[in-house]
Amino acid sequence: MTEDKTEDAHARWIDYRPEIKVLDCTIRDGGLVNDHMFEDDLVRAVYRTCVEAGVDYIELGYKASKRIFAPDKFGVWKFCEEDDIRRIVGDEPGGPKIAVMADAERTDYHEAFLPSEQSAIDCYRVACYIHQVPTALDMVKDACDKGYEAMFQLMAVSTANESDVRRALALVAESPAAGVYLVDSFGSLYSEQVRDLTQMYVKAMEGTGKDVGFHGHNNLQLAFANTIEAIVSGANRLDATINGIGRGAGNCPLELLIGFLHNPKFKMRPVLQTIEEVFLPLRETLDWGYSIPYAITGKLNQHPRAAIAMRASDRPDAYVEFYDQMINEDS
Amino acid sequence: MTEDKTEDAHARWIDYRPEIKVLDCTIRDGGLVNDHMFEDDLVRAVYRTCVEAGVDYIELGYKASKRIFAPDKFGVWKFCEEDDIRRIVGDEPGGPKIAVMADAERTDYHEAFLPSEQSAIDCYRVACYIHQVPTALDMVKDACDKGYEAMFQLMAVSTANESDVRRALALVAESPAAGVYLVDSFGSLYSEQVRDLTQMYVKAMEGTGKDVGFHGHNNLQLAFANTIEAIVSGANRLDATINGIGRGAGNCPLELLIGFLHNPKFKMRPVLQTIEEVFLPLRETLDWGYSIPYAITGKLNQHPRAAIAMRASDRPDAYVEFYDQMINEDS
Repeated sequence: MTEDKTEDAHARWIDYRPEIKVLDCTIRDGGLVNDHMFEDDLVRAVYRTCVEAGVDYIELGYKASKRIFAPDKFGVWKFCEEDDIRRIVGDEPGGPKIAVMADAERTDYHEAFLPSEQSAIDCYRVACYIHQVPTALDMVKDACDKGYEAMFQLMAVSTANESDVRRALALVAESPAAGVYLVDSFGSLYSEQVRDLTQMYVKAMEGTGKDVGFHGHNNLQLAFANTIEAIVSGANRLDATINGIGRGAGNCPLELLIGFLHNPKFKMRPVLQTIEEVFLPLRETLDWGYSIPYAITGKLNQHPRAAIAMRASDRPDAYVEFYDQMINEDS
Repeated sequence: MTEDKTEDAHARWIDYRPEIKVLDCTIRDGGLVNDHMFEDDLVRAVYRTCVEAGVDYIELGYKASKRIFAPDKFGVWKFCEEDDIRRIVGDEPGGPKIAVMADAERTDYHEAFLPSEQSAIDCYRVACYIHQVPTALDMVKDACDKGYEAMFQLMAVSTANESDVRRALALVAESPAAGVYLVDSFGSLYSEQVRDLTQMYVKAMEGTGKDVGFHGHNNLQLAFANTIEAIVSGANRLDATINGIGRGAGNCPLELLIGFLHNPKFKMRPVLQTIEEVFLPLRETLDWGYSIPYAITGKLNQHPRAAIAMRASDRPDAYVEFYDQMINEDS
């Protein structure tokens, strides 16, 4: 390390990168904890928080197919109908852009994506696994043709073959997507892996004007750290949730991310206020955040579903039994 | 990024560095939560866990001056008398080395450090602030003269002047200390700062054979991430505690660190067992781990004492009031 490099590195903590955009996915990823059954008051409180905190996007839920998911089994944010969105966001201009996630093979996108001028939605985030890339690209095209911004979310990258990921990125680079997210679905990536992958994504998008984003999970207490690593490696779109709410171990906490970003448009205080008033009481009925079963699935690079089931069972603290079971499982 | 670099980085997750040594400071740093009043059964359980998990050192507490700290106000691990240590560790060979912390200006070291052949202690970790460096160096010399290994812990480096730190490191390099720890006392360092500082410490110790270590706190959910960053930057001595117990937001969790290190001598299962059997019940009476007040002091690079006081008050969740108070404080 030379003296100059130290000075460069320190300087980065004084400056900020104006291109960085924050997406709050509290309602969308948090909805995975309670089948999207948030009350309007809570969703409105989160929306107001995003307005006041200077957050760029708010993601409210999924555009799921009602043929696949019975509407009486889920809250309205599984489907994000126009009326539900408008009831929350009103007509006030200047708030965050509205994002909705659409899963490949779980969305009737040809019908469900309205022409954008008829919709309160600004951005579709199309999520897929590596074997669904062609379907997801068709969804991206459909959304863009109808006037939306579309982002490409390649899930579970930690289990995908590296050359397949490179090929998928090359296809995204040729698509009309506004960008691509590195998604650490299992919360299993360590910082150097985030750095290498982010750099790979950035390089694949070079010259296209497309953004790279990062979405982390907190299984190994690394969601915030990995988000910082992604920023340093060139990611400009960052996902976070209030108090880290989200499936299993949760996500990068919005309060920490905003505390880290130096752009004066971001405000930490409204997020703290909403945690105090809304999310602390919510913890009495919903379970999220770091715990040992999620750390075990994260370390083993596994989907957290076994840990979620175990936490919801009558033996949520049988850590050693769960560890033995996961270690001895044939994969 | 070239292809080769990617391959190098990936290769590091397969291999391991045999020089890396883990120190469990569960009883010492955890003792800051309960004035060192752990029962023998708990301390024995932690010791057994360290034996079984392959941990290299266990730190049991402080060698505090009984002239400054009244023995009836603290548990025995504030003083670490020989009899108390022997009651826990017995005579069984092959367990972890026994470490004790000694604070500059709070230890009557000339009398309290016995000749090492009369002691169960293997290593003194001498802790000081930047203005106490000469005292700490004298303590290091005293410990080494008496036959101990001594480590130098420079606390609160995030508030010290960089040129002062360089001068302190030069003095440590000339001392008989076995190494020096980068200590993130306030849990305020971000990864790039950890990288720069670790590299600075490594460079200062170059050619001396001395180790560099890292001790983190979890105020910003970065204790584990920063420990990884320190490893990658050359630190070989790593502090952790079971389930992250420790003052305020706590420390790097031993279970995560052991899950990350690939040396087969380290075992995760005994740590999980102790968390399940001993630390989950302990959480009913002791408060530690990430919470908003600690995140606020971490972000502001402040000692956590105001947050600890606030968490122990009758308004432990008045986050916004605490934030306003900390932001408006003259410093």
